[in-house]
Order: sequence, then C-alpha cells, then structure tokens
Amino acid sequence: MKKEFVKEITPMGEDFAQWYTDVVTKADLIDYSSVRGSMIIRPYGYALWENIKNELDMRIKETGHENVYMPLLIPESLLQKEKDHIEGFAPEVAWVTHGGTEELAERLCIRPTSEVLFCEHYSKIIHSYRDLPKLYNQWASVIRWEKTTRPFLRTLEFLWQEGHTAHATDEEAHEETTRMLDVYASLCEEILAIPVIKGQKTEKEKFAGAKFTYTIESLMHDGKALQTGTSHHLGDGFAKAFNIQYSDKSGALQYVNQTSWGLTTRVIGALIMVHGDDRGLIIPPKAAPVQLMIIPVAQHKEGVLDFAYHLKNRLSKTFRTDIDASDRSPGWKFNEHEMKGIPLRLEAGPRDIEKGQVILVRRDTGEKSFIPIDDVEQKVAETLEDIQKSLYERALKLREEKTSSVLTMEEFKEVSAAHPGFIKAMWCGSRECEDKIKEETGATSRCIPFQKETLSDKCVCCGKDEKHMVYWAKAY
Amino acid sequence: MKKEFVKEITPMGEDFAQWYTDVVTKADLIDYSSVRGSMIIRPYGYALWENIKNELDMRIKETGHENVYMPLLIPESLLQKEKDHIEGFAPEVAWVTHGGTEELAERLCIRPTSEVLFCEHYSKIIHSYRDLPKLYNQWASVIRWEKTTRPFLRTLEFLWQEGHTAHATDEEAHEETTRMLDVYASLCEEILAIPVIKGQKTEKEKFAGAKFTYTIESLMHDGKALQTGTSHHLGDGFAKAFNIQYSDKSGALQYVNQTSWGLTTRVIGALIMVHGDDRGLIIPPKAAPVQLMIIPVAQHKEGVLDFAYHLKNRLSKTFRTDIDASDRSPGWKFNEHEMKGIPLRLEAGPRDIEKGQVILVRRDTGEKSFIPIDDVEQKVAETLEDIQKSLYERALKLREEKTSSVLTMEEFKEVSAAHPGFIKAMWCGSRECEDKIKEETGATSRCIPFQKETLSDKCVCCGKDEKHMVYWAKAY
Repeated sequence: MKKEFVKEITPMGEDFAQWYTDVVTKADLIDYSSVRGSMIIRPYGYALWENIKNELDMRIKETGHENVYMPLLIPESLLQKEKDHIEGFAPEVAWVTHGGTEELAERLCIRPTSEVLFCEHYSKIIHSYRDLPKLYNQWASVIRWEKTTRPFLRTLEFLWQEGHTAHATDEEAHEETTRMLDVYASLCEEILAIPVIKGQKTEKEKFAGAKFTYTIESLMHDGKALQTGTSHHLGDGFAKAFNIQYSDKSGALQYVNQTSWGLTTRVIGALIMVHGDDRGLIIPPKAAPVQLMIIPVAQHKEGVLDFAYHLKNRLSKTFRTDIDASDRSPGWKFNEHEMKGIPLRLEAGPRDIEKGQVILVRRDTGEKSFIPIDDVEQKVAETLEDIQKSLYERALKLREEKTSSVLTMEEFKEVSAAHPGFIKAMWCGSRECEDKIKEETGATSRCIPFQKETLSDKCVCCGKDEKHMVYWAKAY
Repeated sequence: MKKEFVKEITPMGEDFAQWYTDVVTKADLIDYSSVRGSMIIRPYGYALWENIKNELDMRIKETGHENVYMPLLIPESLLQKEKDHIEGFAPEVAWVTHGGTEELAERLCIRPTSEVLFCEHYSKIIHSYRDLPKLYNQWASVIRWEKTTRPFLRTLEFLWQEGHTAHATDEEAHEETTRMLDVYASLCEEILAIPVIKGQKTEKEKFAGAKFTYTIESLMHDGKALQTGTSHHLGDGFAKAFNIQYSDKSGALQYVNQTSWGLTTRVIGALIMVHGDDRGLIIPPKAAPVQLMIIPVAQHKEGVLDFAYHLKNRLSKTFRTDIDASDRSPGWKFNEHEMKGIPLRLEAGPRDIEKGQVILVRRDTGEKSFIPIDDVEQKVAETLEDIQKSLYERALKLREEKTSSVLTMEEFKEVSAAHPGFIKAMWCGSRECEDKIKEETGATSRCIPFQKETLSDKCVCCGKDEKHMVYWAKAY
C-alpha cells in the first residue's frame, strides 16, 4: 500500500519539474482552474500562507509600519509618470478597457505593483518634515501577464505584501531598505528554515525605477536559485516624477527619498523545493498549518479513539494538532500526512495505551521513538524544535555542497553544466560580461553579496580588473 | 480653538451627506485618488477593517470554515454558465481585453463575486457524500462598475469575505444560510454595537441566481436603511449549471445544495452612520484601533511625560492604548481624537499626578471622571464595557424611534416623507405592489423579518389578502 501510494509522486531525480507539480497538487496546496496561469490556493495551501503572512505582518508592524489598502486599478496616465517604471512594467500588465457595457475613455491596468498609487497619495499627504517618515504596507494580489507559468513560482496573479515608505534623507531610506531585507531574511531563516544570501542586484537585474535593489537569494534542491524577497531604494526619482516634497526644518523644500519592498506567495515555492523529498512536502514546524497529526491505530478497538481524542484536546493547547480518525487504513494515513509534510506524527494503538506510551515519527528523518505518555508535551516540543533546526542545517549543507567558485569561463561552463548551484565568480561590473555569462552558461547574476570575498583580481569573463564577487546561478 | 475645529465638520442636521464625507476624510479613514470611484483606505481606516476582519474570521473558522483563494479574473464563458447570475452581474463588471501588448482571444472580467469559480472547483473536487460539506471562505477585493460612488457605501472596488459552501441536502444548506446570517448579526451587535433586523429578501431583491436571500438590515442616523450582510441559499441551480454531483450512500448521483454569503467594507459605513455625531466618528471599543488615548497636559512640566509614558506601558498590557505627546495643544488633541472616535481619553497633568489621579473622558457622553491611579485598569475596563453597551442601546433606541407602522398608502407616503426610517406594512407578495410602493414613496422592501407581526389582514397597497409584514425604507 505504501509503495503504491508513493509511486504517485514522480521522484525528484527522475524529473524535478514533474515532482514539483505532483507535490503542489497532490498535497492539496493548489488546483488549476479555467483561468490560464492563475491558481486556486486550497485550504491547506492557504493556511500555510496565513501562517507566513501572520509572522511577516507581525514583523512589519513591530518595525513601525502601518497597513493600508490602495485601489486595484491604475489609470494608464498615472502608470506613465515615472519613465523607467513604465518601461519595465508596460509589457506585462493586464488592461481593463470596458466597464459594464461602456468603453472607457482611458484604459486602466490591474496593478502589477503599486508605487505610482502610493506616490500620488504621498504627494497629497506629505507637507512637512513632521509628516516623515511614512511607513506603509499593503497586503494585496497583483497581476503580471506572464507567458509561462508555474504554481507559486510564476503566476499571472500572485499574493504579496508591498511596503512603500518615504523618508527625509537618502540615508534613512537606505537604512529602511536594509532593515526590511533583514526582516525578510529572518522570516526565511527562522520560520521557513530557508538559508538566504543577502546582497545587491546588478544594474541589469534591479527594479524598474530603483536606485538599487537588495535581494535575498536561496538555493533549491535542483541547484537553481530563487529570489525570495527584494527591497528597493528608490532614491528621489519617483519623488521628482510625482512631486513629493516636504519643507525641512529651515523651511526649504526637499524631495523625499523612498523605498519599496515585497515578498510573495513565491516563498511557498521555495519552501517546497528547499525541504521536500521523494515522499512529498516537508513543512518546517513554525510554518506548518498542522504540526502534529495524531493517528489512532486499530481504532475500532475499545478505548483507542477516546484516548486519541483525549490526546488531541490535551496537545491542542500547545501545538497545532489534528487527528485523522477517518476509515482509511493507518498505512494510507501515514503516507497521506507524510506527503503533506506534517512535521510530526503521533501513533497510538491498544498496545501503546496499555504500556502508557505513544509513538512519535519525524517527517524529516523518519525516526521513530516511544514516549511515556506523561512526557508527551515535552517530547513533542523538543522534537519540533529539533526538526526546525535540522531542516535549516540540512538546507544550509545542501547549499554549501552546491556552491562552487570558478576562476575561468571554461570552469564556469563546466561547473554550470555538471554541478548546478551557486557559482561564485569575479566580475568587472560591465553589462557585456553579464550578458555573455548568461549566454554561454545560462546563469544570471543573483547578487553581489554583502559578505565580500575575493577569489582573484580579474573578471572571470573579460579578464579586466574585478569590481565584485558575484553569486551566479540558473534561476526560477 | 475647540469651536473653530468643530466647524470643520458639517453638522449632520445641516447636510448629512456632507457630514459623512467630512467624517471619512477628516478622521483619516480614507482618501481619494485618481482612480474614479475607488478609495484609499488609510492606516486608521484599515486598522478598523483589520479588527472587524479578525473578529469575523475567527467566527468563520469556529463554525468549521476554511479559507482559500480563487483567481481575480473570470473568463466570460465561465461567468455565463448560470443564466440568472450573468444577467444580474454582466452590466456591472470590468473587462480585461488585453494582456501586455496582446489582445485576448476571450475577454476576462474582474470578479464581481466568485460563485462560478467556486462552482468550477467544486465540480472537480466533490465526488462522494464523504466530500461534503465543503465549507470555504475567501477574503478578497471585488469590482462592480458603479456609476455613483461613496466611500465604503458604494465603491467600484471593495474588500469583503465571500463564503461558498456545498452540502448534501437542501436542509443542510438552509441551516448554513441561517448560521452565517447569525454570525453576521452577532458581529454587528456584539462588536460593532449595531442592532440589526434579520429577515428574508423579496424575490425582487434577492441575489442573482439564489433560491432565497437572508439579510441583516440596520438603520442609519438619517433614517435610511443599510443592508449590512447577506446570506444566500443557492439551492441546486448552480450545481446543475456546473454539474456538481456526488454519489450518496446508496451510490446514486445527487446534485449538491449550495450557499454563499458576504460581508464588506460597507459595514464601516454603517458603523459611521449609526454611531457618529456632530463631533465626528464614534467607534465602539471592541472594534476601535485605539481604545484609550492618553493626553499629557502641560507636558513640558517635569514628570508629566514620564508619568504618561509609564501609564501607556501599564495600560497597553490590557487595552489598545496610544499616547499623543506631540507639540499640539491639549485642546487640539482633545478635538482630534474625539473626531477620530476614540472611545476613551485619559488626561494627566501635574495637578493630577500630585493628587494621584487621572481624568477619564468618555467619547459617547463627554462625561468626565476623576479616577485614583490605583483603580485605573478597573475603571477603564468598566467604562469601555459601558460605552460598548450604551452605544448599542442608543442605536436601538434611535431605530425604535424611527420605526413606524402604516395601514394605508396615504399613511405610508406621509410617514415616508415626514419621519424617515423603517416603515412596517403588510404586503400581498406581488411584484406590482412592491414596485408601486417604491414609485410612490421611494421606499424599497428591506426584508420580511423572521420575527413575524400582523398589523392587518390586507396589503397596504392593493388591499388584497396580506402574505407578509415587510420592513420598508429608503436605503443606501
């Protein structure tokens, strides 16, 4: 039974893309609909997003930000106000041309991001240095007209939060950009157990309209990188386009400096591809909708269900606990909840009850332990903590194994083909070399890491003086 | 100062519509943007919505529902599957015709509501009686192409939750329809202090595609009614259009019975117009983003600010507490926070500190009391509770004062013109009389209340045998 069931998920090694699709659909995270490129986020997937959202929202509020809600639709003329921004986004927006039966005088796009709406609002509400900083955030869905889509990773519509802030000085905006990247990094590392590399995007890869973009990058099981969150220093470009000025303490008019930063449902794709295995999903305990699944064994026997429900009530006080008392076989249940990535399983049958014990089974290692019933809270707490820690360590180890350094283009091509993962290489800073590396190896610049390293003094591509060590990778 | 400030809000009695606009903008709930008919929900307004949302989400989950997320866009062919539904909604949807630079083969509408998406999904995931009931809910924004808009009350885009459920039998769907109406009623009465009348909509006023619609109706300060939440029994009409069938215990195929129910940001409009006064907003404590505002008096004097911040830390443990230590005058602050409807103000100056007391001022009555500092937690708790209760009672009294019974059309017209409010009158059940009453009095049928009453045995309009007592009113 176990075997037959596991067959349903394509092994990672055989076809990673198919493994991913199997996991997202069979673990009931998403379903497809007749809306091309969009996904239905099912209860299990949405509960996971709600946990992530709550953790992030708390951190966003703790750092002094307030939530707001901006309109979904943006008039074309408003979107066009900042030149680089419209150039970056115009090719991928959805256009509303009719309202009811009438054709609109001006078409409206569905927000691909909301900089221009925040800017228009800021130009109305910011007057004096006393009005600064403005630290706003919004939870919303956005649309980008992607041609090729994959659940969570690249969809026409996705859910996210977008922070938009205005500050008196460039320095304060810079601090904010860093602060929010740190918030994203702590969410990923502490809650999602995903190790990240913090760094700066190259000019080519930065956000349309930004002065610079900071990013956190993580590495998937198949050696591809995934941009997990970005934080942009917008400088005063938008402020000039939208005339967002304040009078400083001396009464002189100054342009504000702005930031924006976003984290999306994409992070669920990262979670799946960092922790999952051939049995399915593995969700870190701190993010898991269900941390502990109780499975009664031989539940038709007297006292078993009572005992299991009693345990459920008892453990629900401390852990997100569920029970599967359906009429499926224990084997089916084991597989089902393993596939769904529930970190810990508790089995209890007549013999265990007799002996005053229960069985705990870890999802990450499969390790089984027999626990005296009196110790169950303590053991569950310890084990969940250990799973959280182990998942992070395992992911970090995987990333380290899949990170190489190269000094020549030959090495670069070889490693890129044979050992997919992060490739560290020196770069002169020119767009030409960046493009050439992509063309010849398929790898794009992921980031110039904050933690500097020097592998040589020459650009890996042109041999001229290096400017930065860059993390390169094929990426989602 | 106080006087001058209050002038900024148009008195209710002078121009109720202008009073409303003044309150929503000056209390910083919303702002306008260049997007016609949409609103920006500002931090204070959004914090209020978050409180309402959290309270409702908790109740939705406690009654066994799960949150999901459906796509924003609906293909035209999918929207057309249920005949009555498309007829009702087609005139008011926004159409996406282009993605990026390409014209779409089939246009997509932005969801005005998501029945068809849930139905398509249900037809895929419901197979057996074991799969029922399905109890789903979604938090989202929707668009309806309204010509005349007013913040919260009628906007192109609004935020809401929409529940969509599928059940084995008509009876179970009926129970669900009632259960969720009760959830809305308890939210309105217990948290928002808004008394509601529960009842059923007439055929004319029911939801497009429903078997019947239940509603809660509340009465505003100006005597107009506002539909505050609706719960629809969809019968098996959608199930037949979308082929949502399950095999029952005997193996026979059956259509499911469905419900849908929604509550929107409109409820904030109700809260404003039920509780507000000429000084501005009054927010019931259970919904208030800030329950208690501390205002230091003579804050430049030694010890005052320290004392105020100490109090803030102490009271923040139990209440949503804020402090206004800005350099504005106490008079300005009093007015500002009264206008924002903060239920309770705490003043503390050097003399109070000396006497070991603070001053509490209620927003609803203006009543001032001197409280020994040791009793402050208890007094704040008691006063907030009393404000919550008083606001409900005051609103109920107002509704009762503004509710009349009429037996003839002459009375109906007279009362409708002279005493705006709910008008109770008997009705024969015909569409003709319903239309005629609207034409002659401006009042629409609000609901056939669950709590039956008989005023006479004849229809107020045609004199034929009555079928129901109906609440009529001019409405938002």
